[in-house]
Amino acid sequence: MSPRARTQDKAISRQSSHRRQPPSRSPSLSQLGELGVIHLLRRRFATRTRSIIQGIGDDAAIVRLPAGHLLLASTDLLVEGIHFDLRYHTFGDIGYRAAVANLSDIAAMGGTPRYLLTSLALPARYRQDDLETLYQGLHTACQPYRLSLIGGDTSSSLSGVFLAITIIGSALPDQILTRQGARIGDLVYVTGTLGDAGAGLEILRHHTKPTRRRGRTDEQFLLLRHLRPIPRVGLARRLSCLRLATAAIDLSDGLASDLHHLCAESGVGARIWAGALPLSPAFRRFMTRTLQDALDTALTSGEDFELLFTASPTSRSRLDRLARSLDFPLTCIGEITSKREGITLKHEDGSCRQIPTAGYTHFRQTKKASHTLYGRVSTG
Amino acid sequence: MSPRARTQDKAISRQSSHRRQPPSRSPSLSQLGELGVIHLLRRRFATRTRSIIQGIGDDAAIVRLPAGHLLLASTDLLVEGIHFDLRYHTFGDIGYRAAVANLSDIAAMGGTPRYLLTSLALPARYRQDDLETLYQGLHTACQPYRLSLIGGDTSSSLSGVFLAITIIGSALPDQILTRQGARIGDLVYVTGTLGDAGAGLEILRHHTKPTRRRGRTDEQFLLLRHLRPIPRVGLARRLSCLRLATAAIDLSDGLASDLHHLCAESGVGARIWAGALPLSPAFRRFMTRTLQDALDTALTSGEDFELLFTASPTSRSRLDRLARSLDFPLTCIGEITSKREGITLKHEDGSCRQIPTAGYTHFRQTKKASHTLYGRVSTG
Repeated sequence: MSPRARTQDKAISRQSSHRRQPPSRSPSLSQLGELGVIHLLRRRFATRTRSIIQGIGDDAAIVRLPAGHLLLASTDLLVEGIHFDLRYHTFGDIGYRAAVANLSDIAAMGGTPRYLLTSLALPARYRQDDLETLYQGLHTACQPYRLSLIGGDTSSSLSGVFLAITIIGSALPDQILTRQGARIGDLVYVTGTLGDAGAGLEILRHHTKPTRRRGRTDEQFLLLRHLRPIPRVGLARRLSCLRLATAAIDLSDGLASDLHHLCAESGVGARIWAGALPLSPAFRRFMTRTLQDALDTALTSGEDFELLFTASPTSRSRLDRLARSLDFPLTCIGEITSKREGITLKHEDGSCRQIPTAGYTHFRQTKKASHTLYGRVSTG
Repeated sequence: MSPRARTQDKAISRQSSHRRQPPSRSPSLSQLGELGVIHLLRRRFATRTRSIIQGIGDDAAIVRLPAGHLLLASTDLLVEGIHFDLRYHTFGDIGYRAAVANLSDIAAMGGTPRYLLTSLALPARYRQDDLETLYQGLHTACQPYRLSLIGGDTSSSLSGVFLAITIIGSALPDQILTRQGARIGDLVYVTGTLGDAGAGLEILRHHTKPTRRRGRTDEQFLLLRHLRPIPRVGLARRLSCLRLATAAIDLSDGLASDLHHLCAESGVGARIWAGALPLSPAFRRFMTRTLQDALDTALTSGEDFELLFTASPTSRSRLDRLARSLDFPLTCIGEITSKREGITLKHEDGSCRQIPTAGYTHFRQTKKASHTLYGRVSTG
């Protein structure tokens, strides 16, 4: 097990056991007060590096970006009842997930995430433990990339928990990946496997007490893919430094939806080979057991936070070598076509169908959908 | 009337008349859908300048800061029922107020605000008009400083409106103002007048239909000071460029509270001269009429978004000249003392008392306080 996996495992166990304990004795937020909250965050989670001239504690943070770098910025918002459900998500899950959504955005640009700002509203009945667990989740997600918490705003809320995260990153101008560079004839790749996170959420929602311990069962694997997805920051940096990708997007809304976004920005179409989609054995077995269509689910299921990228066919062998050297799957799942041809799925029997834009959409949710973690609506 | 005041006046009238109209016929957010929301914002509010390499529409925004500048970042959060009340605040008020809180933070650092990211959650029953009005409020506040909306996240909410704003600015390293530079013997200054915004909120809360039109009555003046405060961005830039201030903070929580923050960060105390506090005639008359103590209110009332700064006594005549040239009050209200002496108020009869840390504090609000706009809790 890698050191990173161990860290995550400990974090999950801690949060999990925390939930089983009797009601916490830590001070309520009303007892802690707003200055108590600020001091807690400053003491526990603010880090100082040479690039931070002023972190938490002034009207604004002051930082220095590396010379010649462009600034990258991304914001994500998690709303109780829409993106998470406190009946089965812990505060640690919320913090972790909020950070990963943003880290994944910076990754998809080929950038290095650097600084974090948080805006958190939560009812005064919650306790210091809850706040610390949420920030611990954020910290666990950010720690491998040495992000620093440089500021934020904390408020009471009359109803529901809201968490907005802004991550600031940077990249050299010639190493940035956008959604706009895909060209006809390019190959379409994804990292990792598809659909696992969605299956993990389903297990969490429908099974009374799924065990959160890291283990070898399908359930444990899928649950971890939902609760502790790993943003592909390092891999994306390799792709951008080695000039191996022509365009990239992270898979937050689901392959179908995110492929549509990438193609729209690049002004192209795409043909996806159904048989090539990388599906984990655990996901396949879960689909069979629950009588669901693995292909449809893999196309529309969100929050895997894998990368979808395009590459010139001349980069194919270099990508294969990179995958082997990292011992991590980079799977070619199709090719870029002209815009006129649309976005299609080619089955192994040779038949083709259009892939509709799918995935969760805000403001149109059904009651069921309103309880999924799916469907970040990012405008930037 | 300045062009800026006219712009604001129009905006307020429009929002005010909008509220009197029968229920809007614009599409509901459910009808608009999330892509509709993104396209609307991209079309209406995204601007392009040479420094924006990628605005709304990719995983993250990409911008270029001016060479040699440090990055400034500040986040503020507005929560329905805590920071605003839709019974008497319009969506335009919310957008304007969110932007000003952040602009004021960047101002207090002596910086130039440049880019804006928003996170907005609102129930699906609201309409496109409401969303546009909120963004119009943001736009009205940001327009004088040519800020660009570069990204954000929009979500439905099961309960309540939630708006988090991040503003990114920049400043040359030697022109940054912090809370840490106040030295014993420095003079303490404030811009503008104190307490007006709090009085305006009181009028809004307790008067059935206060007119929002710009006019000459006390009510109109105070209301405008609450609804459309002006962040002191330009003035703060002058102070920092001319090296006239040794430390600065913006008045968001109230003079007493913010002075405590500044003194704590600088490791000093302060003696404030009660007779010197700049109070507007409208505020004085309102205090008399409502049988309130003008001095106590001016010390504890928040959201004026004026600047509190310290300056060396040798800068006094230059500050006087600056105030005359701008035709804008910069009032010397006291002096910096040793930390041991604490933070005191010296009355005109020579008597002294300690100024307690006051102002609204989150997680400890009474029912009454939970409906004020007071008390941003910023950790950065």
